[in-house]
Amino acid sequence: MMIMNLPELHIGLPGWVHTFLSGYPDRIPDMEARMKMVIALSLENVRRGPVGPFGAAVFDEEGHLVAPGINMVISENNSSLHAEIVAFMLAQKKLGDYDLSGGGQRRLALYASTEPCAMCFGAICWSGIKTLVCGAKSEDAESIGFDEGPRPVNWVSELNDRGIEVVLEVCREEAADVHRRYLEAGGVIY
Amino acid sequence: MMIMNLPELHIGLPGWVHTFLSGYPDRIPDMEARMKMVIALSLENVRRGPVGPFGAAVFDEEGHLVAPGINMVISENNSSLHAEIVAFMLAQKKLGDYDLSGGGQRRLALYASTEPCAMCFGAICWSGIKTLVCGAKSEDAESIGFDEGPRPVNWVSELNDRGIEVVLEVCREEAADVHRRYLEAGGVIY
Repeated sequence: MMIMNLPELHIGLPGWVHTFLSGYPDRIPDMEARMKMVIALSLENVRRGPVGPFGAAVFDEEGHLVAPGINMVISENNSSLHAEIVAFMLAQKKLGDYDLSGGGQRRLALYASTEPCAMCFGAICWSGIKTLVCGAKSEDAESIGFDEGPRPVNWVSELNDRGIEVVLEVCREEAADVHRRYLEAGGVIY
Repeated sequence: MMIMNLPELHIGLPGWVHTFLSGYPDRIPDMEARMKMVIALSLENVRRGPVGPFGAAVFDEEGHLVAPGINMVISENNSSLHAEIVAFMLAQKKLGDYDLSGGGQRRLALYASTEPCAMCFGAICWSGIKTLVCGAKSEDAESIGFDEGPRPVNWVSELNDRGIEVVLEVCREEAADVHRRYLEAGGVIY
């Protein structure tokens, strides 16, 4: 007879994220300023390590933060907890809706400090966001050894075809610099 | 000043899964029998609804269940909680390792009642499993309106290239029948 002691998952952002966010205004109207916040979040995540050098956040059109996300693969022993997935999960929990578009009523954006990997690309399709804004290019992450996985070559147009606008290379250099700092700090590449 | 009441995620399988599992032997040595268990799990998930008609499970080589997974998108308001992701998260939590291969020491298999969507395909790449066994074909799910998303056309060989063996169409008809029952029961297609 199969008797299992099944674990439960308790996933919450560490306390320092709250402190970090309290240093920002209630609303961030500018696209670049939103990306800078996400990059700063990924950098702080590296400083607090050991964790992946990636950050993300869901914003509404006016620039209110719906939910942030940080890479928690190592800290939570969970290969699916990329920053993008964490941000989606928290935003959906907060709004009480697995569809962030609310059936077409909301136009939310995901800001990601690096272009999405194969898994996060798929997750974006199911999330209900209407805009994806990326910082570093995939090749920036790959140049230090990270693997973005087998994404469709035309991943941007695939998202466009699903009604998701994609903006690339917003503050790319600053975002890629976080990868390099991670490597210098002896971060694990997984 | 940005002050956020950030939610926490508490993700656990519903109590009926424990009861369901207690009806099975401690070890299921046969591949088809393992798939039949996963299909029965997906069917029970449909009966308990409203949830997606998909199930998954991580097994070790001897046929011991490491962790099951059910689709919890609707019940948890979380578009990333496909059955495969839930099974990975629970298995990784149980083993205390984000790499189910344990750095190459373990050879675990994911059984999925339906071929993976674009997101789960990516998640499989990062999970550390060594074998993927699928029941229904993607077109079976798509024929009732589900969307598998923009997966690479050569997704099987992409997994093979990463050292993951793929076995398709194990108990395909039984698995696809669960999709039909879901549709008949008035299930939401998302």
